Amino acid sequence: MLDICLLGCGGMMPLPNRALTSLMVRYNGSTIMIDCGEATQLTIRRQGWSFKPIDVLLVTHFHADHISGLPGLLLTMGNAERTEPLTIVGPPGVEKVVNSLRVIAPELPFPIQFVELHEKEEIMNLVGLKITAFKVNHNIVCYGYSMELARSGKFDVEAAKGLGLPVQLWNPLQKGQTVTYEGKEYTSDMVMGADRKGLKVTYCTDTRPVPTIAEHAKDSDLFICEGMYGDAEDAKKAREKKHMTMYEAAELAREADVQELWLTHFSPSLIKPKMYLDKVQGIFPHTEMGKDRMTKVLNFEDEQDGSQ
Amino acid sequence: MLDICLLGCGGMMPLPNRALTSLMVRYNGSTIMIDCGEATQLTIRRQGWSFKPIDVLLVTHFHADHISGLPGLLLTMGNAERTEPLTIVGPPGVEKVVNSLRVIAPELPFPIQFVELHEKEEIMNLVGLKITAFKVNHNIVCYGYSMELARSGKFDVEAAKGLGLPVQLWNPLQKGQTVTYEGKEYTSDMVMGADRKGLKVTYCTDTRPVPTIAEHAKDSDLFICEGMYGDAEDAKKAREKKHMTMYEAAELAREADVQELWLTHFSPSLIKPKMYLDKVQGIFPHTEMGKDRMTKVLNFEDEQDGSQ
Repeated sequence: MLDICLLGCGGMMPLPNRALTSLMVRYNGSTIMIDCGEATQLTIRRQGWSFKPIDVLLVTHFHADHISGLPGLLLTMGNAERTEPLTIVGPPGVEKVVNSLRVIAPELPFPIQFVELHEKEEIMNLVGLKITAFKVNHNIVCYGYSMELARSGKFDVEAAKGLGLPVQLWNPLQKGQTVTYEGKEYTSDMVMGADRKGLKVTYCTDTRPVPTIAEHAKDSDLFICEGMYGDAEDAKKAREKKHMTMYEAAELAREADVQELWLTHFSPSLIKPKMYLDKVQGIFPHTEMGKDRMTKVLNFEDEQDGSQ
Repeated sequence: MLDICLLGCGGMMPLPNRALTSLMVRYNGSTIMIDCGEATQLTIRRQGWSFKPIDVLLVTHFHADHISGLPGLLLTMGNAERTEPLTIVGPPGVEKVVNSLRVIAPELPFPIQFVELHEKEEIMNLVGLKITAFKVNHNIVCYGYSMELARSGKFDVEAAKGLGLPVQLWNPLQKGQTVTYEGKEYTSDMVMGADRKGLKVTYCTDTRPVPTIAEHAKDSDLFICEGMYGDAEDAKKAREKKHMTMYEAAELAREADVQELWLTHFSPSLIKPKMYLDKVQGIFPHTEMGKDRMTKVLNFEDEQDGSQ
């Protein structure tokens, strides 16, 4: 199960009724955040989620609306008595930028580990999830992220019995281990079915709609993407400022064949994003307009009750 | 006229129903701010005041809850098309700290001028106000500020007539200039009465209740002071953390003989500041508990309609 909250859906500056765009994903007692603009900690508090289990912060880029809330968040995590390390992943210079912001948060009760991205695509395994960072096309270096929760195949009881393996060896094999029984070696694949469909979430702001986005969002259960502008006449502005329109985002979603698209990072000049929904759904029907603190629980396909 | 807004009244971290403590004072088309914690720009927006005329930012100290909102504010001021210089006043290192935070706000359409405080007391004239910074006693270097609007004496028409001065020379004399008429020099004090009572606002967080505060708050029309704790048993915590209780603040107000005291910078653990009001008013009757976006217009004593 992945427990997802789009904390805010605004771009550029926080507004009284629209927090800056940021994502929180809870999995197995850990929390992964993407971006942390000014006042993001307020939204987490409104949502009632805990600061303490934030283990990973993925930073898309260093524009203030995506990182200005970091010093305050770090201090609040410290006040929540976190002592475990926090991993911060981001574009080149992430350590320097974070340390520069920490001029006002120099002392924390937990260490920070940095992962500095350099390649077009980088894959990490963090808190049990496969995280892929992919470089997009903004006016400064910017990355999108996908998070995947793998799901192994079903254990084949008949195969295990057929091999004559005693029950106490089944569990290590289910966990992917190799066991030896009566002088013979048994590998996991001898008793496990093919991997089943897992869960995938892809998040992407701020960028032009480049092909790598659809490639990395491919088959996502949820694709969260900027839709900065809704008016057709803003297409030029989107190109100039290296952002995208809602329609460009919807085309990416269609191409990536995702289950659902949430739009976010709305321009402050865009008062009612919902007025564009019909038009966007004409391109990709499973589109939702982002709202502050919009949540979704993603379950494996045959486990809709939330258990894993 | 001074137009005053206590933007927030919280300490340590922004809460959904309590913004971080910060003051905005409007005078004659300019705005002076004291401190800018995370999400302060949101409160300014809620209050409906403009970002553009912020000419001066006075920083008390460099704890995050007093300055973490600065990068976002600077960018929003830039988006409001400000081009005039901004003056930032603060403790030693203010330029270094602000520039460090500006790692995420490197490009602004207006220059920043820094005034770095070093003395126990420093006096400046900014946007027509006399500003006095005074060092207080926190666990890092911290300053309180008072702002004074002077008021000249009344023009003595009879004296001017008695001196035989033609009407066209009255105005330069009223403005404090010296004029020459029929070979003789006339100074302003020959036609102006004694200076009248002006307006004074004093703002002070985070500190122990040291004597300099009452000295500098002396005779203020409005004294805004931290009252971090209300429970009697928190007096020890206040001493340890170099803060003060509401009762200590009220004693300062009484000693300084101010017109009115507003308490602010409440601890996040303090849910209902108003429950302590009776007890605090027992020490200083003209006390109000701070609230987000609490406003007051201060007028000269015989000009209560707001005109000057």
